[in-house]
Amino acid sequence: MAKLKGRGAIAQSGGPTRVINHSLVGAILEAYNHEDTITELWGSLQGPEGFINQEFIDLYKQDRVNLLRVARTPGAALSSSRKKIGNGEKQIPPEQFAEVLMKKQIRFFFYIGGGDSADNALTVKKICQDNKYDIKVFHIPKTIDNDLLENDHTPGYGSAARFVTSAFIGDDRDNFSLRGVKINVIMGRNAGWLTAASYLARKQEGYAPHLIYVPERSLTLDKFLSDVESAYKKFGRAVVAVSEGIRDADGVLWAKKIAEVEETDSHNNIQLSGTGTLGDFLANNVRAILKISRVRADTLGYLQRSYAGDYSDQDAKEAGDAGREAVKLAVSDMQSGSVTIRRKEDVIGYDYELGVVPLENVAREIRPLEAKYISEEGNDIKPEFDDYARPLLGKGMPEIAILDMIMVK
Amino acid sequence: MAKLKGRGAIAQSGGPTRVINHSLVGAILEAYNHEDTITELWGSLQGPEGFINQEFIDLYKQDRVNLLRVARTPGAALSSSRKKIGNGEKQIPPEQFAEVLMKKQIRFFFYIGGGDSADNALTVKKICQDNKYDIKVFHIPKTIDNDLLENDHTPGYGSAARFVTSAFIGDDRDNFSLRGVKINVIMGRNAGWLTAASYLARKQEGYAPHLIYVPERSLTLDKFLSDVESAYKKFGRAVVAVSEGIRDADGVLWAKKIAEVEETDSHNNIQLSGTGTLGDFLANNVRAILKISRVRADTLGYLQRSYAGDYSDQDAKEAGDAGREAVKLAVSDMQSGSVTIRRKEDVIGYDYELGVVPLENVAREIRPLEAKYISEEGNDIKPEFDDYARPLLGKGMPEIAILDMIMVK
Repeated sequence: MAKLKGRGAIAQSGGPTRVINHSLVGAILEAYNHEDTITELWGSLQGPEGFINQEFIDLYKQDRVNLLRVARTPGAALSSSRKKIGNGEKQIPPEQFAEVLMKKQIRFFFYIGGGDSADNALTVKKICQDNKYDIKVFHIPKTIDNDLLENDHTPGYGSAARFVTSAFIGDDRDNFSLRGVKINVIMGRNAGWLTAASYLARKQEGYAPHLIYVPERSLTLDKFLSDVESAYKKFGRAVVAVSEGIRDADGVLWAKKIAEVEETDSHNNIQLSGTGTLGDFLANNVRAILKISRVRADTLGYLQRSYAGDYSDQDAKEAGDAGREAVKLAVSDMQSGSVTIRRKEDVIGYDYELGVVPLENVAREIRPLEAKYISEEGNDIKPEFDDYARPLLGKGMPEIAILDMIMVK
Repeated sequence: MAKLKGRGAIAQSGGPTRVINHSLVGAILEAYNHEDTITELWGSLQGPEGFINQEFIDLYKQDRVNLLRVARTPGAALSSSRKKIGNGEKQIPPEQFAEVLMKKQIRFFFYIGGGDSADNALTVKKICQDNKYDIKVFHIPKTIDNDLLENDHTPGYGSAARFVTSAFIGDDRDNFSLRGVKINVIMGRNAGWLTAASYLARKQEGYAPHLIYVPERSLTLDKFLSDVESAYKKFGRAVVAVSEGIRDADGVLWAKKIAEVEETDSHNNIQLSGTGTLGDFLANNVRAILKISRVRADTLGYLQRSYAGDYSDQDAKEAGDAGREAVKLAVSDMQSGSVTIRRKEDVIGYDYELGVVPLENVAREIRPLEAKYISEEGNDIKPEFDDYARPLLGKGMPEIAILDMIMVK
């Protein structure tokens, strides 16, 4: 069989991350090395929508120096979309999508996204196969949720975790200054990986966060309030990390129970981010029931994935490598797959290696925060998590210090 | 008259800033140079409350290397308080406060805080004078609100402005990725300086923020909605910067009008920060009335003053210098005053100089965002503001880049 050659196309899908453009630029720069095989590289605007709207930009006509700056820029440089390739309402019919690939003679399709995107890539690949159209399809992982199967962690997570950790390091000292109860709501619809990153801010006992709640454990309002009361009594203050995805004992999202507005997207997910409702609800309950006077809630919001002022150099490197790897695989004998990042074992310190698995393996299901990292009582994270997550934050994390509390007699 | 010598005391008051400990440590390190005059230096825990509770730590017994780390740590290292020295409810009676100063033979009182703190320092000074008790009282400025009279800008502002700018740089690219309307609520009860910092994120027309609202201009909901609609039509998206202190046409805080819970502090200010209510209210209106589907609101919250992962080196330097200056003034012939920061004129580039003014001059009144920086229509900031604020952000601001939009034919 002759080696496949021809036009390539790449898209960024779903919510962006701080390093998603490292993956894009990694793929572009690697493709430059294989112009004989990948003869053109098109960038689809607005994720999968660019295919349907036939809006592509020419990625072989980019300035290399500018590309390196684009890599360091947050957000999806190609722009993105929440639309799924599927047969539901507000979705992009897979047949229509595949038709564009075939009509435009696209032979290499790279899709940067989460589990949904891997699933979509698989669907498209199958339709092309059914039509006996040769195409290579590779999925490049990204998600700040860190919930992709088959991976030790996912590009985008390290930088988001770094932001959350740095936020709690500062908020701990802010709350130390003025005391009271502070509740911070963290992204992560179904998995507690990002919320768990708040644990890395805890230098030692007594430092924030004093309580951590992840979606993997149900939580009643009574339990929440009694935990906050205990922590407040013990430490004279309490900083609480709460995942936006926490669920009540009946498994229903708290956010759903209290949302005034239930905006749904095409994945039928209810809006969790971009609203302060959950944090305000919890704060109002602490204030009203526990009679604590200074109670504040912040929803860390989109800064977690987009804050321009900081990112993990480790995350950026891995994101770039994952993009490059997808192109290397595409010009090899492989037909399709999802690039993976695994942690090397039997090495001193942290190192990682790239791999590839069938698209099926990462599609649909998600990888929850592992039970071994969650405390027995379900309101804290265990120290083992530090070993897992610390290397992903990268270099140059802030270090804090306190005064020697030598009291005057 | 013999030169005053004896015990010194220092406190941090009000909301902390990212660099408030630079001022504290600057003062401590400078005091070390004058141990013959300032024979001891006590740090009051919890702002003015430490005097009443007689909780002081010994600042001459601190490790110097640790102090440099403390300087870089967010939050108030001595801890702080919102309590005012005054005769209102929940306040600390000035006579009681002055009595402690006299009883403990404190001859140098340094107060790090905003305009309220300068006012409090003045009250205390007067009581001591009435009692013929010799004491030197110096106010060291800090406020992220940047609203202190007599100053070009205030320690704490540069770092908060840097955070806001970096947040909008990233959020601009996030909103570019997925479009829709994004509303970000920014701290600043009475002055728009911090909200105006969002303007520095706008690289050129079309970049976020597309609209900026400060407390200095009243804003009706109708005007807000019509502005958002226009921006959304023009740019296909809209990122909006809104001060938490925006007021309706009748001069009443929007936050007050919509707050479900009106928690008040001892200054009788209603709670503006630590709740998502204002952002959610605006977002719900945009969604319901303008029928725009993707509408999000983030309240940037306490990260603006406490985020550990970044700060302005310029701000840190000036904060440290202001702390040192207060001590230098105290060991000079001066009796009292508030340290000021002014911009040097007739120099190439940015430079600043420290000065001192009577406490009266910075007490009570605030300095609103100057009218020359606000657009005629009251929904934007003028380019001149860039010249003012850019140098305060410090070195190493993130630079972003976009792809060349060379469309495939």
